[in-house]
Amino acid sequence: MMKLVVQALLFDVQGTATDFHSTVCDEARRISAGRHPGVDWPDVVRRWRAGYFTTLKAAQGRGGGWVSVHTVYRDALDAVLDEHGVSELSDTEREELTLAWRRLRPWPDVVPGLTRLKSAFTLATLSNADVSAVINISKRAGLPWDAIFAAEMAGVFKPDPAIYRMAATYLGLDHAEIMMVASHKYDIRAAGDLGFRTAFVARPLEFGVGGEADVAYSDEFDINAADFLDLADQLMARL
Amino acid sequence: MMKLVVQALLFDVQGTATDFHSTVCDEARRISAGRHPGVDWPDVVRRWRAGYFTTLKAAQGRGGGWVSVHTVYRDALDAVLDEHGVSELSDTEREELTLAWRRLRPWPDVVPGLTRLKSAFTLATLSNADVSAVINISKRAGLPWDAIFAAEMAGVFKPDPAIYRMAATYLGLDHAEIMMVASHKYDIRAAGDLGFRTAFVARPLEFGVGGEADVAYSDEFDINAADFLDLADQLMARL
Repeated sequence: MMKLVVQALLFDVQGTATDFHSTVCDEARRISAGRHPGVDWPDVVRRWRAGYFTTLKAAQGRGGGWVSVHTVYRDALDAVLDEHGVSELSDTEREELTLAWRRLRPWPDVVPGLTRLKSAFTLATLSNADVSAVINISKRAGLPWDAIFAAEMAGVFKPDPAIYRMAATYLGLDHAEIMMVASHKYDIRAAGDLGFRTAFVARPLEFGVGGEADVAYSDEFDINAADFLDLADQLMARL
Repeated sequence: MMKLVVQALLFDVQGTATDFHSTVCDEARRISAGRHPGVDWPDVVRRWRAGYFTTLKAAQGRGGGWVSVHTVYRDALDAVLDEHGVSELSDTEREELTLAWRRLRPWPDVVPGLTRLKSAFTLATLSNADVSAVINISKRAGLPWDAIFAAEMAGVFKPDPAIYRMAATYLGLDHAEIMMVASHKYDIRAAGDLGFRTAFVARPLEFGVGGEADVAYSDEFDINAADFLDLADQLMARL
């Protein structure tokens, strides 16, 4: 088996380290408090996340000033709620619901997996979420990062090459010494194109039960893992 | 007593959280291995640190591209060794000695103090050291930061206002919700001028025994503390 020279691991946060689907669904049910009993909240959250991606891409295309991800989520919410006929949430409640993205819960394997990996590697986030959101999520959940890196620090979103290069500069490492870990193939492919090592982590429930997460392993990645504990097992075995 | 609205604490690293003097002296003695028995290593380290400040200011004045702090230390070392008649250290040994600045040991109160503070505040560095150096120091010493912020991320060194503003932006907080903690008055004064809260921590041994550290408390700061445990006591009492 190939020996790894990896010194640092970079982790996607929304989806890979945290279960946004169940967190945001729970918050929507709590805040709507039975006023919209017929609404398919899992579908609302899936469409909200899709709206976020559309807005993010549009923002990237515009090339204007930095736009906070909190603003992106808030802006994408109204259209999604209209589509589903959710009219009774006030502006304050919509703002509160948007804050759910700053309180995402980790998948159950994440804290024990990171804790094992921390003894052997530098662990950092590389997230499109706002720095303050990543800090908040990590502090609430006790995620033991050595550093927080986020798109906001690069002024561009993943998969722009500048954000991966920024992380390598800050780590003071060669690209081949860094592994990008994500459940999203576009993210690890972008890192791989720049010479980073790649780890795919399957998150079958990223979009909830019945959501269509891409969980297919592929030889194009250095590692394919079922979760962060499996990732730790495979990486530790190669040290 | 005034109630504090502080949400986050920013810490200087070199001098305030870590004892660079004893760390670098020990490394110099280890690497020189008795070849220069008459050399006053504490004075070498004091002059080296002074040379670093001179080079840093010159770099800031030039306004050119970013220069790593590792390079600044390495460039400042040769002149200091020449002054002290230290001729027998090879280039490799000088490089190794410079790496001591990436392995600085914390003062004994730092880990227990930060651990107490972490339950109530977001804790981040705001250091002129390279991001990779701060990560390395923190990981070796187990410093429980929620985030690493450093001059390298702002492209300017403290006390340039841009670096304090950057930290506030990333934290998503108002300046008055953030406290800058340092043993260097120029650092906390610069933050205070921008509306940050300020904490002075006395480090009488910052420059070793007989070194002239400024440890005078002053009413101009919100807090004056003997160490991080005293800082924690005072801040926790005001929550």
